Amino acid sequence: MSFKVIASKHAALLDQELMSTCGFTIDQLMELAGLSVAQSIYKVYPPSTHTNCLILCGPGNNGGDGLVAARHLKLFGYKPIIYYPKPTKRPLFDGLVTQLKLFNIEFISSGNQLSESFNTCDLIVDALFGFSFHPPIRQPFDSLISQMIQSHKKIVAVDVPSGWDVDEGPVIEQIKNYQPDLLVSLTAPKPCSLKLADKSRHFVGGRFIDPQFAAKWGIDLPNYKGTDQCVELT
Amino acid sequence: MSFKVIASKHAALLDQELMSTCGFTIDQLMELAGLSVAQSIYKVYPPSTHTNCLILCGPGNNGGDGLVAARHLKLFGYKPIIYYPKPTKRPLFDGLVTQLKLFNIEFISSGNQLSESFNTCDLIVDALFGFSFHPPIRQPFDSLISQMIQSHKKIVAVDVPSGWDVDEGPVIEQIKNYQPDLLVSLTAPKPCSLKLADKSRHFVGGRFIDPQFAAKWGIDLPNYKGTDQCVELT
Repeated sequence: MSFKVIASKHAALLDQELMSTCGFTIDQLMELAGLSVAQSIYKVYPPSTHTNCLILCGPGNNGGDGLVAARHLKLFGYKPIIYYPKPTKRPLFDGLVTQLKLFNIEFISSGNQLSESFNTCDLIVDALFGFSFHPPIRQPFDSLISQMIQSHKKIVAVDVPSGWDVDEGPVIEQIKNYQPDLLVSLTAPKPCSLKLADKSRHFVGGRFIDPQFAAKWGIDLPNYKGTDQCVELT
Repeated sequence: MSFKVIASKHAALLDQELMSTCGFTIDQLMELAGLSVAQSIYKVYPPSTHTNCLILCGPGNNGGDGLVAARHLKLFGYKPIIYYPKPTKRPLFDGLVTQLKLFNIEFISSGNQLSESFNTCDLIVDALFGFSFHPPIRQPFDSLISQMIQSHKKIVAVDVPSGWDVDEGPVIEQIKNYQPDLLVSLTAPKPCSLKLADKSRHFVGGRFIDPQFAAKWGIDLPNYKGTDQCVELT
């Protein structure tokens, strides 16, 4: 498998450019990113076999992508449950939570509920940390990631497997054996995706740039089919 | 064909509720609405046969849906050209224009360019007026709609065929014979869609409410397939 990657530093700059000179709002980009995550999940783990999804949302934009994905998963026929221990205090994120509550999607809070959800879910969405993650992994996320790994459920990572160094991969001892079953890279794969196990599947989503813009940043646009918002790298 | 419709007054209230108590931003809803229009077009008029699209954008949110659709159409392989004679002076709309310019999508301004585009396009997207339209049709839109009708090109109407009374249909003399080839109703069909000709195709897009919310407003959710953002009513 051969594809171009974008280093964490450049991914941050690209994101900044999209939301400044390119005129996108974070609302738009997050909506399309989360939708592409939900579509990728549908292609690999359809709701008929993986109804119950536990969505783990972190405190930043990666968590926001998870919240959007959860809403679309509900519309696609899944039963998502959300764990969002450190909600971001910004209007966009407040709105995403309100939308989910409108959809009667459950937010869990206690450790008991969480343990039960790890047991009963068919699928975990890891939307804890994205391309701006830097070690160490702080509480409560270190024990949360350990629980996730030990659950032996199917794991879908949003953009970056949480705890992995974005450029180097799984270098922290605690998450050394963590491999998601499905990684959905957003816009373009980050260097750590080169450390994915052979058995892990790898999609690209976040279909919002055109070939010329991609070329300027030295990345490839994957070969999206039709109106699909995601595509598997093979 | 049997489906529930939502009167213009209620459509406006539903929209208000989505963007207040439900926590959605207009950026999110417009992104999903425009995407669903582009997907509907792809299903009926694929880019292999209908490459050149002339997108006519009005001064309100219907025009914004057209701007978003144009961007997705470009990503799907079309060559959109935009006519947007009365740009809305709001940051969201400025941003949508900036995004399109980043994608090297042409905006035409002169009457000559417009006449040429009517001649050379394969498809027209009518994103002039939506569910808040009230007669009369003011300049420059009255002559624009006449030109559109007289072009005899395929026409895709966004939410409401422009100039039609949202609840009554084509009552104004000037547009009495206007029938779009494809109507994409957003969220739910408006009453005027009952006046669509038998030969017109009818899709519903704007997949952002759940069955319970739909029931509260007395509308049906169409039977979306998989992760599709639109579905044909048959």
